[in-house]
Amino acid sequence: MWNTFENKIAWFQMKGGFKMNLLKDTVKSISPIDVHWYSIAQKRLDNLTKPPGSLGRLEEFAKRFVAITGISMPSLDKKVIFTFAGDHGVAEEGVSAYPREVTGQMVLNFLNGGAGINVLARHAGAEVVVVDIGVDHDFNSVDKLISKKIMKGTKNMRRGPAMTRDEAEKCIEAGIELANEYAERGYRIFATGDMGIANTTPSSAIAAVFTGRPVSEVTGRGTGIGDDALRNKIKVIEDALSANRPDPFDPVDVLSKVGGAEIGGIAGLIIGASAKRIPVVIDGFISTAGALIASSLEPKTKDYMFAAHNSVEVGHKAMLDKMGLRPILDLDLRLGEGTGAALAILMIDAGLKIYTEMATFGEAGVSEGIRE
Amino acid sequence: MWNTFENKIAWFQMKGGFKMNLLKDTVKSISPIDVHWYSIAQKRLDNLTKPPGSLGRLEEFAKRFVAITGISMPSLDKKVIFTFAGDHGVAEEGVSAYPREVTGQMVLNFLNGGAGINVLARHAGAEVVVVDIGVDHDFNSVDKLISKKIMKGTKNMRRGPAMTRDEAEKCIEAGIELANEYAERGYRIFATGDMGIANTTPSSAIAAVFTGRPVSEVTGRGTGIGDDALRNKIKVIEDALSANRPDPFDPVDVLSKVGGAEIGGIAGLIIGASAKRIPVVIDGFISTAGALIASSLEPKTKDYMFAAHNSVEVGHKAMLDKMGLRPILDLDLRLGEGTGAALAILMIDAGLKIYTEMATFGEAGVSEGIRE
Repeated sequence: MWNTFENKIAWFQMKGGFKMNLLKDTVKSISPIDVHWYSIAQKRLDNLTKPPGSLGRLEEFAKRFVAITGISMPSLDKKVIFTFAGDHGVAEEGVSAYPREVTGQMVLNFLNGGAGINVLARHAGAEVVVVDIGVDHDFNSVDKLISKKIMKGTKNMRRGPAMTRDEAEKCIEAGIELANEYAERGYRIFATGDMGIANTTPSSAIAAVFTGRPVSEVTGRGTGIGDDALRNKIKVIEDALSANRPDPFDPVDVLSKVGGAEIGGIAGLIIGASAKRIPVVIDGFISTAGALIASSLEPKTKDYMFAAHNSVEVGHKAMLDKMGLRPILDLDLRLGEGTGAALAILMIDAGLKIYTEMATFGEAGVSEGIRE
Repeated sequence: MWNTFENKIAWFQMKGGFKMNLLKDTVKSISPIDVHWYSIAQKRLDNLTKPPGSLGRLEEFAKRFVAITGISMPSLDKKVIFTFAGDHGVAEEGVSAYPREVTGQMVLNFLNGGAGINVLARHAGAEVVVVDIGVDHDFNSVDKLISKKIMKGTKNMRRGPAMTRDEAEKCIEAGIELANEYAERGYRIFATGDMGIANTTPSSAIAAVFTGRPVSEVTGRGTGIGDDALRNKIKVIEDALSANRPDPFDPVDVLSKVGGAEIGGIAGLIIGASAKRIPVVIDGFISTAGALIASSLEPKTKDYMFAAHNSVEVGHKAMLDKMGLRPILDLDLRLGEGTGAALAILMIDAGLKIYTEMATFGEAGVSEGIRE
């Protein structure tokens, strides 16, 4: 017995010692959704005082939420949106309408409560957690800012890999750590958000890699660049793909070569949420790039995702289609930060309230329909 | 002088005496929107810490709200959804999956807070006002029910007019009275809703009259009827249109011949809201039939409308297109009651909060973009 145990320890230490591999272990721990909850939830929905199915997608949201969490009468009392911020070396190629220092300035705006995400998160009753995962600025110890800094901005992907493979894994693990921490603290729904000047550029690169579409079909105007800058942006992305040759069957390779720190953090958050059976609302274009990384690492993560909205950004639909996700809203948004996710939370919450608060036919004394 | 004044009095009395014509006078008092507010609102929106236009339709909602109300920094503290209930003689033709008594039963469910509209109105922070405008049931003095009863159900429109012209005008005026009362009480936004077994049938008839489309293209499954019942429903509507020959250039004629009491009330509420410069959120298929009546009486009412959502009901899109309205949500809803409007209020409110609560570039110390 002793001998066997010692052998196991030796084998374990050889494999990397007592240090767990957080990314691999978390991915491995993701289970499929318990589908028997769908029929339980459907039965309740059909007994509420409305024609069956007449609340459409609200009913779908409730059913999925119940099946994901295994909670029979769920309520959304604790909601959190993670806004991951990072800088991008590729910004020096003139791919954005805004100067690079805006990333750090906007982080401070988030912490002061004045940005779009703050307003919409308050509206949705959700907290905003701002995560510095790769901003090229020293915030020192700013109050409320979560520091998971893996780097001070990526390198320019046009010239070589945006980051090392080790950094890419660390970005994903930062997201997993946050998911684990907030799951522990009793949050019932997570949402993703991003801030990073130039980050539609790596996101379009990731979209091109995973959808197989030409760069020009998945590259848009981001914060609002003109025609010349758009042509340049497409060329920059094409150059980055040629220079780096990311392997679509190795998502960490893709993230390291043409990704970004915040995109890695978002991917990690989704993986962590899935492992903890917590629904995760995917914001817009950049968040969906993170979702592509996550779903390529483990396709079961898709079952835990809600796609918040259909972004104006060209290529977003192709990314959602690739994962088979139908967006909840279509409001011509293209801000990011988690703003679309905040609005989508309001709709998911509406579905849960329908599910838990509506009267049944029996309770209300209402005659049921004629089933043909 | 005396003489002239007496002449005027005589002329006035000849024209109908001191009794005002509420419908005609209210329609006449609707002004166009003060468009100079659009540029004032646009200036503020473009100075908020986000790329110009990046919050898409949320920005549009804010701009329209400001222009409609003329309030420079609006807030949605008082919101109300009017759920008009009425019965329909045409229900005896087997056009619905539910028995007629459900209208009255659902009115009681609304008053007890157990219906879909109650749940979603609470979610949106809106009050629900339940209006009996034509239910075939004596509620006596049920608490909280607003009685504006014009009739106890319409007549079967397959056999003749659903109501008299005088009743149709009274239904519209009931809606105007409610709009006036709630405007006086300081409500900032109105929304419409409906309850009435069989009421997709008159709504489809109204859609056919105003869009000019064949009945089969604007008639759907309502609460969920099967193929045979749908064929019968189409035939019933075609018969009603042949029997009554409603005049598309006389909206009151259309309402009286193939309409319903709740549809008239909704039309009146929209007219009253427009006259008082209060934004009005149009729910789904039945509410949009009311909106067609209102906009045919006075096209300027369209400027005061927000179309809540794109209903599953066939023909809804044709009605919205006819008025040039783009729906806010698309969630496969087909319940009515005002449920889609409640959800849309949350999105309009989001737009107003963005407008009033976000920091400007100057306030937040964020660098502005490069304008190309």
